[in-house]
Amino acid sequence: MSKLIALDWGTSSLRAYLLEDGSILEKRQSAHGIQHLPEPGGMKGYETAFERICGDWRKQYPECAVVASGMVGSAQGWSEAPYVRCPAALDDLAKQAGEATLPDGGKLYIVPGLLLDDPDAAPDVIRGEEIQITGALAEHPEWWQASRILLPGTHSKWVTMRDGKLEHFSTYMTGELFAVLCDHSILGRLMPEQQASAEDAGAAFDLGFSVARQGGTGDLSHQIFSTRTMGLTERLPNQALRNYLSGLLIGNELMSATRSLVGKPSLPLIMIGEGALCDLYLRGLETLGIGCTAQFNNTSYIGLWKFAAARNLIQTN
Amino acid sequence: MSKLIALDWGTSSLRAYLLEDGSILEKRQSAHGIQHLPEPGGMKGYETAFERICGDWRKQYPECAVVASGMVGSAQGWSEAPYVRCPAALDDLAKQAGEATLPDGGKLYIVPGLLLDDPDAAPDVIRGEEIQITGALAEHPEWWQASRILLPGTHSKWVTMRDGKLEHFSTYMTGELFAVLCDHSILGRLMPEQQASAEDAGAAFDLGFSVARQGGTGDLSHQIFSTRTMGLTERLPNQALRNYLSGLLIGNELMSATRSLVGKPSLPLIMIGEGALCDLYLRGLETLGIGCTAQFNNTSYIGLWKFAAARNLIQTN
Repeated sequence: MSKLIALDWGTSSLRAYLLEDGSILEKRQSAHGIQHLPEPGGMKGYETAFERICGDWRKQYPECAVVASGMVGSAQGWSEAPYVRCPAALDDLAKQAGEATLPDGGKLYIVPGLLLDDPDAAPDVIRGEEIQITGALAEHPEWWQASRILLPGTHSKWVTMRDGKLEHFSTYMTGELFAVLCDHSILGRLMPEQQASAEDAGAAFDLGFSVARQGGTGDLSHQIFSTRTMGLTERLPNQALRNYLSGLLIGNELMSATRSLVGKPSLPLIMIGEGALCDLYLRGLETLGIGCTAQFNNTSYIGLWKFAAARNLIQTN
Repeated sequence: MSKLIALDWGTSSLRAYLLEDGSILEKRQSAHGIQHLPEPGGMKGYETAFERICGDWRKQYPECAVVASGMVGSAQGWSEAPYVRCPAALDDLAKQAGEATLPDGGKLYIVPGLLLDDPDAAPDVIRGEEIQITGALAEHPEWWQASRILLPGTHSKWVTMRDGKLEHFSTYMTGELFAVLCDHSILGRLMPEQQASAEDAGAAFDLGFSVARQGGTGDLSHQIFSTRTMGLTERLPNQALRNYLSGLLIGNELMSATRSLVGKPSLPLIMIGEGALCDLYLRGLETLGIGCTAQFNNTSYIGLWKFAAARNLIQTN
């Protein structure tokens, strides 16, 4: 039997898992993401956050390895785990793990992020999603050979798996665009706190999605203005403008990201993410006639377990 | 000889002109845009702002007509001047002018905005730009017959003129997108206060523009993330990331808006706007092989003069 302390440490939250043989013995969550560390922040902030969330586990199981994924390994993190270049297999991530020193002098192994650095295209980066993918694909070696993975979110990721490696990926700032437009642009002014009925919300999402589908290159900054005019002309109730904008933005992401899926209907599409957001993406994909092969929620702890095994930090059967 | 008090009254500023025979006798500016009215705001705020900027002109020339354009005629303005439907000629705007009562009981005539409300497409609106166009085209009846007008800005407008009317237009939220992404998204975090050298700024703008040109439908929310990765990978100096993002966004707008110009090389393209921003658009248009027929800066006072003449508020030769 083998135990592991596994940390999913992102920008706005910290999740800790005490694992045994790949299963959760105990799970904890704190708000101490790397941008919300306890005072005084910095190195001491990381140590305090660590002590508070799992200092007792560490005392109880001093021999137990500790691993972490996410922004904790970024340049602003506890200790930088430099990006590994794509294509990369799990073994590449394990070999190039970053390291930090725990308050008791022990070692924390940090999953590195991935860098796509093709000189002919703009670069792209991933940090944290690679371990969720590793978790989702744990029981499916065939998906490591050939699949597409979609992780909707603040920064949506579309990842291509091939020959046992993360081969390519693209980031879409869809979630963050939605948030800044609602919170800081003229579009938010017509949006009330009150939510639309499920029916109005669905119809508005679909309308935004269809406008996105009819669009061409560069149309987005024109399309989003219609969020305002749909309200001004009362074609949509103000409560549903948020849903319309969501349909526009997700529609644009899907138009772009699924272009390469055309003619490859057999490539499995795997979705990893939170339920309500995944439902919107599923609704859009369905409209485009694209099926989703499987859907996962939180898989980072499984990925961290696999990572620890690849690094020989735990004994597996 | 005929005099006119003309107000260009937008969201963030108020400009007042004392005109005689279409020329400026005196010009004043205040920060009392409709979102920055003097206390206590509302109707009283409009009256106070008016008194302060040109109460003396009003006393000196009590017979002189007063006209205004811009957001002062919106639903949040002094008095709403409802949108006129496209296609619309200057005479349509003059006939459907809005009215407000001045502090001394006189009348303020307000230029109405324009509404594009094709049931098969998302609606669009303009308010203020129509009078700038009227000004720019004052000496060019041939452009009223057939031309395209570009007004770069927070909300860029592309307007098609045909048969003496404003026939069609599209709004692009390019400037506002740029501002909210720099000020409120992760992209701004890598951007220092310091500006890039003119050479670095130009090269970064061109790089962003070329990425936009290579893009397809819906790529924008992917492309903008590269503003971050270009900095992370040091392909661009952080000081030039702002210029790169500007190139990306203006590039996307031009890709979309100029699609309908392909095959119509003889249609005049007229640009109206502030110098530095127009220069960026000119740089992009040149890359696309599209020439600009003429360029104007502030033409609203000329448009207001024309509007007053169409409404028979002044005597013209």
